[in-house]
Amino acid sequence: MKTPQYRTAIIRKEHFNAAHRLHNAHWSDEKNKEVFGKCNNPHYHGHNYDLEVKIIGICNPETGYVMDTKVLSELIKTNILTPLDHKNLNLEVEDFKNLNPTVEHIAMVIYDRLRSHIDPALELKIKLYETERNYAEYPY
Amino acid sequence: MKTPQYRTAIIRKEHFNAAHRLHNAHWSDEKNKEVFGKCNNPHYHGHNYDLEVKIIGICNPETGYVMDTKVLSELIKTNILTPLDHKNLNLEVEDFKNLNPTVEHIAMVIYDRLRSHIDPALELKIKLYETERNYAEYPY
Amino acid sequence: MKTPQYRTAIIRKEHFNAAHRLHNAHWSDEKNKEVFGKCNNPHYHGHNYDLEVKIIGICNPETGYVMDTKVLSELIKTNILTPLDHKNLNLEVEDFKNLNPTVEHIAMVIYDRLRSHIDPALELKIKLYETERNYAEYPY
Amino acid sequence: MKTPQYRTAIIRKEHFNAAHRLHNAHWSDEKNKEVFGKCNNPHYHGHNYDLEVKIIGICNPETGYVMDTKVLSELIKTNILTPLDHKNLNLEVEDFKNLNPTVEHIAMVIYDRLRSHIDPALELKIKLYETERNYAEYPY
Amino acid sequence: MKTPQYRTAIIRKEHFNAAHRLHNAHWSDEKNKEVFGKCNNPHYHGHNYDLEVKIIGICNPETGYVMDTKVLSELIKTNILTPLDHKNLNLEVEDFKNLNPTVEHIAMVIYDRLRSHIDPALELKIKLYETERNYAEYPY
Amino acid sequence: MKTPQYRTAIIRKEHFNAAHRLHNAHWSDEKNKEVFGKCNNPHYHGHNYDLEVKIIGICNPETGYVMDTKVLSELIKTNILTPLDHKNLNLEVEDFKNLNPTVEHIAMVIYDRLRSHIDPALELKIKLYETERNYAEYPY
Repeated sequence: MKTPQYRTAIIRKEHFNAAHRLHNAHWSDEKNKEVFGKCNNPHYHGHNYDLEVKIIGICNPETGYVMDTKVLSELIKTNILTPLDHKNLNLEVEDFKNLNPTVEHIAMVIYDRLRSHIDPALELKIKLYETERNYAEYPY
Repeated sequence: MKTPQYRTAIIRKEHFNAAHRLHNAHWSDEKNKEVFGKCNNPHYHGHNYDLEVKIIGICNPETGYVMDTKVLSELIKTNILTPLDHKNLNLEVEDFKNLNPTVEHIAMVIYDRLRSHIDPALELKIKLYETERNYAEYPY
Repeated sequence: MKTPQYRTAIIRKEHFNAAHRLHNAHWSDEKNKEVFGKCNNPHYHGHNYDLEVKIIGICNPETGYVMDTKVLSELIKTNILTPLDHKNLNLEVEDFKNLNPTVEHIAMVIYDRLRSHIDPALELKIKLYETERNYAEYPY
Repeated sequence: MKTPQYRTAIIRKEHFNAAHRLHNAHWSDEKNKEVFGKCNNPHYHGHNYDLEVKIIGICNPETGYVMDTKVLSELIKTNILTPLDHKNLNLEVEDFKNLNPTVEHIAMVIYDRLRSHIDPALELKIKLYETERNYAEYPY
Repeated sequence: MKTPQYRTAIIRKEHFNAAHRLHNAHWSDEKNKEVFGKCNNPHYHGHNYDLEVKIIGICNPETGYVMDTKVLSELIKTNILTPLDHKNLNLEVEDFKNLNPTVEHIAMVIYDRLRSHIDPALELKIKLYETERNYAEYPY
Repeated sequence: MKTPQYRTAIIRKEHFNAAHRLHNAHWSDEKNKEVFGKCNNPHYHGHNYDLEVKIIGICNPETGYVMDTKVLSELIKTNILTPLDHKNLNLEVEDFKNLNPTVEHIAMVIYDRLRSHIDPALELKIKLYETERNYAEYPY
């Protein structure tokens, strides 16, 4: 094989389940209801979140790895699944105390939680499915 | 084609999102925690529920339908999706006031809610996915 | 391992694409429109059909096969995919000259086309997906 | 959370079913048959089209939305699903009167139909699955 | 809810990866090659096996469980995944020393390994995917 | 439709099954075991590899194709599936004689094997799934 001259991406999928509601505390109940509809239900609803963490960089020729996915999987378990899985995002996760837990914002939070644990030479991208039909990518 | 002499099944898939917690009110907090683990979280967690409703019977030779899936889809919307989607099953759905909302019990509730709306000559079966890896079938 | 005393099933998935319309030639245009809605469009619409053929019987201890799925795959190609794939079911497939091509009826036609090619000691069942959300099983 | 400094994408999936044939009216029947094979069948065939519409931009900090997917879903229903679902693309959809309805061209048509309805500050991308094994992305 | 009078099924999905070859030691190389084709490759090939374990019985009204899927998942890990995952089935798994590792036979082996660990009042069924297009069910 | 001014991508999915082990011949057995864990099993294990080949370029207005996916599918069969399917990558595929068959390296090998067969005006990208939860993209 010719020496690889391009960057390679490796992707690891994980999943977690959580409850949430969409709500902006600076708005009236009417405006919240109007903007967020049934997602504003004060008793919460929930989702199975499917998470894809992508790591981009030069493949190490000795291991054939961009990054060991076993190591990546452990980082995701410790920093994302343990604090978020089977939790109420609004009530139990500090990051959403003042941040509306839309799928876009949850993807950003996951990025921020993982970024410092990944080699700075590697690029990081998050894809998060809220349902089979709605998902977010951050950063794009 | 030879006259069809066997029964045929037609299946319609729908989905809804809900929050729940597993809890038996007759038990101590310790026993609930021991039996239901993180599913007992008092702040709730949630799921994307994927539902398959199966109708079994003799195919009508004039229409080629066991049952019109547009009609079936409307019945599911009215009797299942409207009352359950984006709801907290424990707090907002009467059927679970005294019934633990496990995937088995939710499948039974869906069966009971639909049975009277379906022609008694047709058999009804429910398959309910709580996650991609856990699901229930009722009746079996 | 103990001698297998139960029946085993082996399933092969294949797929084809076709155009069709739902229509009963003995009915008025109004009744066809009322019963079949947009599926009655005289210009046709189409689907990617996903087909599962299940063969049930005693596993041959010498081969470990209920039936060789390579053989089964060839039977499906010859008897189902060649005559149905990329075809207009109403105009080009003899079986639907007087039979409305609902997913239930197409499943029956596939059963009838395959049954004589399969060892009579083996049971045959058809599952046919018209879309991800609607499918039929025959016989049930 | 740090102020989000990157663009975010939000994706909505929808689907429709349609009939089509591949054909270039400026070519002979022989050349059409040679280039498009069984996709040139004059009686049409059909597909279940799975559509992903991606919107890319800066996430609104007040709502946590790049764009409200309920609004996006309505735009797709009005501009894409209503005119294309259960239709014969060659005969019933104006855009394909002089344009071969390959999956690449259908993706372009969907882009052109949606672009003017989306805030110009937001980037738009289309992914369209013709089958599970063939799909197009536009623009790339 | 009416007292549940029917049996309920609960299903848990797991997966493992393994190498194997199809081979009958009592046959000549020619016959093995003829019957098993490229699956007879003496250097082995491999699969991602997707496993569904179904437990059928009366739902316990106190827990709402037919069987706790956390307990079931642990039984599958200990008795199936640990001995089979990332293994060469022909060389490293005792059950296949004299048994051809077809998907039918692997499903039977999984059934026999789990049966004694499950309450005899509960029925057990195995579904095993060798690829997306071939799978087995045992017992049927 | 306005003249298409953007590049379009067309993607074709194929799959193959293979056995492999992760191993660096310049390392001690201990180091190999430590780095690659159960993937270092000397008896091999295996996977169902799902492959997506993406071709990017300007869509030909006469055909409506970026590239004919029937032609692309044949190129993949000849250059990738025939040499890799149902093979032991370490023992039977020349490209991996001195190259560890990680999913990243297999994606690079597939790129190198296809590149010369594709029009240089078209960009080529490979996505390769080793399992449902791990995959690689090359080049990124």
